[in-house]
Amino acid sequence: MDIIKETYEKIKNMEIRGAGRIGRAAAYALKEYAETIMYMDDEEFKKKIIEAGELLRSARPTAVSLPNAVKYVLNGLKDENPKESVIKKAEEFIISSKNATKNIGKIGAKRIKDGYTILTHCNSEAAIEVIKTAYHEGKDIKVFCTETRPRNQGYLTAKALCDEGIDVTLIVDSAVRYFIKEVDIVVVGADAITANGCLVNKIGTSQIALIAHEARVPFLTSAETYKFHPKTIVGELIEIEERDPKEVVEFDGKYKKIKIRNPAFDVTPSQYIDAIITEVGLIPPQGAWYIIEKYFGWIEP
Amino acid sequence: MDIIKETYEKIKNMEIRGAGRIGRAAAYALKEYAETIMYMDDEEFKKKIIEAGELLRSARPTAVSLPNAVKYVLNGLKDENPKESVIKKAEEFIISSKNATKNIGKIGAKRIKDGYTILTHCNSEAAIEVIKTAYHEGKDIKVFCTETRPRNQGYLTAKALCDEGIDVTLIVDSAVRYFIKEVDIVVVGADAITANGCLVNKIGTSQIALIAHEARVPFLTSAETYKFHPKTIVGELIEIEERDPKEVVEFDGKYKKIKIRNPAFDVTPSQYIDAIITEVGLIPPQGAWYIIEKYFGWIEP
Amino acid sequence: MDIIKETYEKIKNMEIRGAGRIGRAAAYALKEYAETIMYMDDEEFKKKIIEAGELLRSARPTAVSLPNAVKYVLNGLKDENPKESVIKKAEEFIISSKNATKNIGKIGAKRIKDGYTILTHCNSEAAIEVIKTAYHEGKDIKVFCTETRPRNQGYLTAKALCDEGIDVTLIVDSAVRYFIKEVDIVVVGADAITANGCLVNKIGTSQIALIAHEARVPFLTSAETYKFHPKTIVGELIEIEERDPKEVVEFDGKYKKIKIRNPAFDVTPSQYIDAIITEVGLIPPQGAWYIIEKYFGWIEP
Amino acid sequence: MDIIKETYEKIKNMEIRGAGRIGRAAAYALKEYAETIMYMDDEEFKKKIIEAGELLRSARPTAVSLPNAVKYVLNGLKDENPKESVIKKAEEFIISSKNATKNIGKIGAKRIKDGYTILTHCNSEAAIEVIKTAYHEGKDIKVFCTETRPRNQGYLTAKALCDEGIDVTLIVDSAVRYFIKEVDIVVVGADAITANGCLVNKIGTSQIALIAHEARVPFLTSAETYKFHPKTIVGELIEIEERDPKEVVEFDGKYKKIKIRNPAFDVTPSQYIDAIITEVGLIPPQGAWYIIEKYFGWIEP
Amino acid sequence: MDIIKETYEKIKNMEIRGAGRIGRAAAYALKEYAETIMYMDDEEFKKKIIEAGELLRSARPTAVSLPNAVKYVLNGLKDENPKESVIKKAEEFIISSKNATKNIGKIGAKRIKDGYTILTHCNSEAAIEVIKTAYHEGKDIKVFCTETRPRNQGYLTAKALCDEGIDVTLIVDSAVRYFIKEVDIVVVGADAITANGCLVNKIGTSQIALIAHEARVPFLTSAETYKFHPKTIVGELIEIEERDPKEVVEFDGKYKKIKIRNPAFDVTPSQYIDAIITEVGLIPPQGAWYIIEKYFGWIEP
Amino acid sequence: MDIIKETYEKIKNMEIRGAGRIGRAAAYALKEYAETIMYMDDEEFKKKIIEAGELLRSARPTAVSLPNAVKYVLNGLKDENPKESVIKKAEEFIISSKNATKNIGKIGAKRIKDGYTILTHCNSEAAIEVIKTAYHEGKDIKVFCTETRPRNQGYLTAKALCDEGIDVTLIVDSAVRYFIKEVDIVVVGADAITANGCLVNKIGTSQIALIAHEARVPFLTSAETYKFHPKTIVGELIEIEERDPKEVVEFDGKYKKIKIRNPAFDVTPSQYIDAIITEVGLIPPQGAWYIIEKYFGWIEP
Repeated sequence: MDIIKETYEKIKNMEIRGAGRIGRAAAYALKEYAETIMYMDDEEFKKKIIEAGELLRSARPTAVSLPNAVKYVLNGLKDENPKESVIKKAEEFIISSKNATKNIGKIGAKRIKDGYTILTHCNSEAAIEVIKTAYHEGKDIKVFCTETRPRNQGYLTAKALCDEGIDVTLIVDSAVRYFIKEVDIVVVGADAITANGCLVNKIGTSQIALIAHEARVPFLTSAETYKFHPKTIVGELIEIEERDPKEVVEFDGKYKKIKIRNPAFDVTPSQYIDAIITEVGLIPPQGAWYIIEKYFGWIEP
Repeated sequence: MDIIKETYEKIKNMEIRGAGRIGRAAAYALKEYAETIMYMDDEEFKKKIIEAGELLRSARPTAVSLPNAVKYVLNGLKDENPKESVIKKAEEFIISSKNATKNIGKIGAKRIKDGYTILTHCNSEAAIEVIKTAYHEGKDIKVFCTETRPRNQGYLTAKALCDEGIDVTLIVDSAVRYFIKEVDIVVVGADAITANGCLVNKIGTSQIALIAHEARVPFLTSAETYKFHPKTIVGELIEIEERDPKEVVEFDGKYKKIKIRNPAFDVTPSQYIDAIITEVGLIPPQGAWYIIEKYFGWIEP
Repeated sequence: MDIIKETYEKIKNMEIRGAGRIGRAAAYALKEYAETIMYMDDEEFKKKIIEAGELLRSARPTAVSLPNAVKYVLNGLKDENPKESVIKKAEEFIISSKNATKNIGKIGAKRIKDGYTILTHCNSEAAIEVIKTAYHEGKDIKVFCTETRPRNQGYLTAKALCDEGIDVTLIVDSAVRYFIKEVDIVVVGADAITANGCLVNKIGTSQIALIAHEARVPFLTSAETYKFHPKTIVGELIEIEERDPKEVVEFDGKYKKIKIRNPAFDVTPSQYIDAIITEVGLIPPQGAWYIIEKYFGWIEP
Repeated sequence: MDIIKETYEKIKNMEIRGAGRIGRAAAYALKEYAETIMYMDDEEFKKKIIEAGELLRSARPTAVSLPNAVKYVLNGLKDENPKESVIKKAEEFIISSKNATKNIGKIGAKRIKDGYTILTHCNSEAAIEVIKTAYHEGKDIKVFCTETRPRNQGYLTAKALCDEGIDVTLIVDSAVRYFIKEVDIVVVGADAITANGCLVNKIGTSQIALIAHEARVPFLTSAETYKFHPKTIVGELIEIEERDPKEVVEFDGKYKKIKIRNPAFDVTPSQYIDAIITEVGLIPPQGAWYIIEKYFGWIEP
Repeated sequence: MDIIKETYEKIKNMEIRGAGRIGRAAAYALKEYAETIMYMDDEEFKKKIIEAGELLRSARPTAVSLPNAVKYVLNGLKDENPKESVIKKAEEFIISSKNATKNIGKIGAKRIKDGYTILTHCNSEAAIEVIKTAYHEGKDIKVFCTETRPRNQGYLTAKALCDEGIDVTLIVDSAVRYFIKEVDIVVVGADAITANGCLVNKIGTSQIALIAHEARVPFLTSAETYKFHPKTIVGELIEIEERDPKEVVEFDGKYKKIKIRNPAFDVTPSQYIDAIITEVGLIPPQGAWYIIEKYFGWIEP
Repeated sequence: MDIIKETYEKIKNMEIRGAGRIGRAAAYALKEYAETIMYMDDEEFKKKIIEAGELLRSARPTAVSLPNAVKYVLNGLKDENPKESVIKKAEEFIISSKNATKNIGKIGAKRIKDGYTILTHCNSEAAIEVIKTAYHEGKDIKVFCTETRPRNQGYLTAKALCDEGIDVTLIVDSAVRYFIKEVDIVVVGADAITANGCLVNKIGTSQIALIAHEARVPFLTSAETYKFHPKTIVGELIEIEERDPKEVVEFDGKYKKIKIRNPAFDVTPSQYIDAIITEVGLIPPQGAWYIIEKYFGWIEP
């Protein structure tokens, strides 16, 4: 049980960060733990593993990749030989998760034609992978990056693309509609995908999607399957985190009375999303719930 | 002619700034100049005044209030007694322009009901006047201000409203769609209004208008009649100024290669504007060209 | 002054009712009163007439035809011979108002082609006139009438059209979208038209307009010019009357706790209105403010 | 075969009513019947059970839960041990159907946040369950009920919610657009769901969905899986029942000539539906055909 | 009266063709006729001229420039010196009409930026003038021409532009949506403009406008003021001419049973038109009725 | 291997044409080939068959039915007895493909009500089958056919329907929006369906879909499952073929400089498609990727 507790701690105190890494750490811990369990009947094994899974899950309730990894692995418990199956599932998850972003890059790059101008928002590993793959396939592309206030993660994206030699232009978040007519495709990342095909992503994403929709510019999101949120299938709403107002600005003196609201994410409705690029293929947003069912199974209401 | 040249200089070197002040200075200069002209026949008078008008107009070709003031005053030349008429027109323009923002405040405040939440963008004197008037009429209101990157003029607006005692909340430009369901009305200012009812205003305005339209929230712009752009009636397009990239951010070293685009304004189509509040009344955007014709006369193609 | 007071009383106690009749009564009273005033200089005459106008106007502040009639007549005071002019204006208003609905019928009927199916809502004299005129021109038409809950004025419309021999079908208000594909044109009346081209009319009108818009069915409103609301030009909002809940239903016992809301009107935005049929012609809704300016003059904010 | 005939009779003469009850009665009858069949080879058993299913199905051809229950149970015939399997399937259907509405309540309630205002139409058990569950979870909610002409089932809903202590407001069907800006979510029931994700429900539903869509208010329908219409997958259209005109009004004398149309249902397109709440999870409307395939199997064209 | 009859004949037998030429011929005939009338009192003069006008108008009832020219000239009858005024009005009309297309070219060309791709439909003199003017101002432009079935007038446009040295691409009418993302602006001509701002133009125009609207590409129509249809202000509908089916194709034998419909025009709603370019300025489509009132006066219902 | 090579040749040189026929020929060749292979172990058999499949696939890379047939048959290789299974799969494909169009006819015809007017574009076997089936079921229907420039395949459709005795009207492609209000349903064929539910079909289809959508007219596409494009699931874009400009027109002399663009297909977005009629049922466009997965399996990125 040590490996479970240790991993729990590391996820909790954010030593382990990033949706992919968190999921893989949980799967790895379950695998290791399962391997250490011996001379136990199946029922007891199941109990132990479920307990371990629950502990891990509680380490960071809002990171969707964590319960997804646990759920994926625990699906093995339904098979005839639960221990073997759990270990196999954990290995599967780790490998597939490791390759996920790369595969998304390959799939997404096929949507980028030579000569395209791409717009992206915030700093998404998967979206950057799509752009880089297209570029390294020899396509002549240009990229617009938004600043992405308040934390300006767009600067990181601009730099990362500049490092590759890609032609990058930075604009303020307010200038998206001004430039949209020069854009051929929008590609963003995802914090979570809901059962009815909505996208939870960095604040500002939903208005970019609306603007792209108004101008008939395709809007794609790149999302590893572990970003699909299983509990939304039983109706759960994803809570939008509000972060420290100081990220925006700090007033003092009499202006301390000015309130500051700083939501970190917003929700883009499925009707503004042309496709979701996952490592298992490009799907319409309305297929999200099927992905959840197929990879993580239904859960009780 | 001294007064004309002096005013020309002050407008040119931006000693005189602000759409209203520029217009009034021009009208005042023409009035003073007209008064000094004596013992001249009408034809010669006309020639002199037209020359003076042309000089003034050239001081800052992009400020629409300047040609509007000159045009308004020179309309007096068509009357029987041109000198008297020019002087009268100049006085009219000065008074009406002085009262314009105040009247816009009175008219616009009638659209704000008790309990309303208002969203505004950038730092518009006329929009602030509307909000302040409503507040001082005793209405219980709340205001969302956007940051308005890159120059953060939204901070000025927030402070100005806070000074009045109004309940203000500051948000990043990307958060407008997130909060729009809590907003009852959007009120912004105007840099210029075109003949077919479009609004040229601070970058980001057009996407706020789109978002308001999507959510069925009324979108109003406050525009003194001297903001209506006469040359658009003969098809002219308003050039959108691109400002110094450093206003956005400065990269150095190898990241100097990142391009930065910084357009100052964008264009909001008439279909997203519910009404324009002018000092002569609230009109639909499609009435703009009639305002131009009525107050400044048609001009040659 | 007797005629003024008497008319004031009759309008106040609703002895005189109906937008057209109220307006004509006010104009008639002003005319009679003006005729009795003799041996008075112009200034004194103006003062008297303005006083009379103000009294009349106060009789029923929400009936827009009343201030419109007064304003129309008082516009005569600006002319050289105010008394004569006031009398002439009053006569003009009376005649034009009398013919207004008839002319609307003639103009509107031209939009009804042979074989058309028309949908109407509530019980509008002007809309019925359009339908009847088309029918008596020999056109083969069918009409859908909505019930128009809670007071079922649609029954009156159905009967009125049935009396003429017109093929009428009654439907519940909820069935409009079900039948809209069989409808060629929607024609309704108007309680008021605002400066930016919105229509204030019986509750339910705005959702019929939305439904017609969705299905690309033209939506026309019939409105005499005295229905155009001058004060909206200075920003005033039209207050929507809420009527007695008992008009909807009466619960008793423990169910008295169920609240009932009964707004009498709603507001249809200009973008869902194809044209307004007035007695002076068919105009786009965005022309409303010009009609107000032309017939009633601007008013101070 | 007695139990089959008896159930057939009771469904036919409407002694057994309500989508859920009808389905369960059919499943129960098939189970009972299967249990009585003994010493029969599998082929003969199949023939008998299919016969029984066909009889039951014919009892009320328009109630979609009836063929769905039969189809669900008869899917057991494909298994190795058809009799056992048929019995097991019947039990499954009965239990799942019994719990369906309750589970829908649990899932749907998660979409209702504290402080929400909900709008509902007609009198749906499943929609009411969602609202009640949210309320009894301690959420502070308000509900708008429409009258739902012509049979005013909205009164029943208002009373049922009032009985629970919920804050209810009744409005006429025409007032939905007037109040929609105060509404956070719309929740209605379902008579049937089609393969391409359309909703067949009480007349008026489709215009409420349109109004909600226009104002960006989420629109949810609650539908037990036995409401999903399998034959629509082979293209069949659901016939819309027209009911007795007297439900609307009765005219007499010369007004008998006024026609009255009284369709009971209308069809809401999938694009206006944000999600379908079923007992097996919240799905996008475009997932309906997959639910049909999974639970009832494909059928021949 | 000879000049009147002669002109009447030439218009009737289509010796005089083209909207502009027809209008000018009528104005010229009235001027000539007025000049020959001598020693007549004003009343008699009016009677004669009105008679002449009526005859001319009857020569080709569907050509809107004809009644517009007559109406414009006859407006002179209201002045103090009717004969002089009629002659002056006729001259005005002729000159302004001659310059109209050229002025439209100048105004419209201002909307074409360097580097633009323009799409046009059919073969409009005014639209071509806009394109040619922009080109000869030194702008680097490309043009897409549609075939414009059934008479392929697009070939004429392509050739006319090719003659000027402009880069032209011809496409089938069905390919507009395919290419619209490469288009910066659509410019078409007009057969008639209605009082509520609709455009009557060559079949296919309305679907191009819809496609441009969907893709946020500005859609402009070029229309001389004599194309504005005065009778639409009193509600009249413009009848759409159906032309000989043989223009489309001729089947024989048993295929003669195939019906062919060949409407020559369709109607583009105002909401898809960004602006109308007239010789007196660029106006929003909702300003059409004001142009009618200003230049041709109101007419009786 | 002879049968494989022979079939490869016939497909390559277009002796075998048409999506259905090509797919069946490939399946048949694989079956024949498999049957001739004897005394081979499974691994070797697989290798041989995969080789054969690859050769066939290369015969015409753009015909989607070809790789689909090969993929369908090769899915048999995963089973225990690969040879038997491959033969069975090939037979299945042949039969199901033969019946596909007929079944589509049966399913689609259920969407056509008595009295309907249908619009179709180009010359699709499946769409014609739907119309003919509806007609032969005794329904009173009318059909609009578009010309379908540049190759006028609409004439073939009109003749085929005329041969059946159906009431057909031919119109130019530009007249669709003019007639859409008389149309009850649009039914077209498909060249390919993409993973995210878009339709690739004859140029002009996407604008017809847009027009139908604007007017709330249902738009259906008929597509055999072998038209669903598996590689789009891994992001691949379907290249749109540009055909010989001479199909449109031939200019000579100085007009040779006029460019002609002649794309054969365009892409209709899923939001404008109400349902896809396949031989296995009517599905929403968003279900396309599931059909691909179910019938052809996922493929590697």
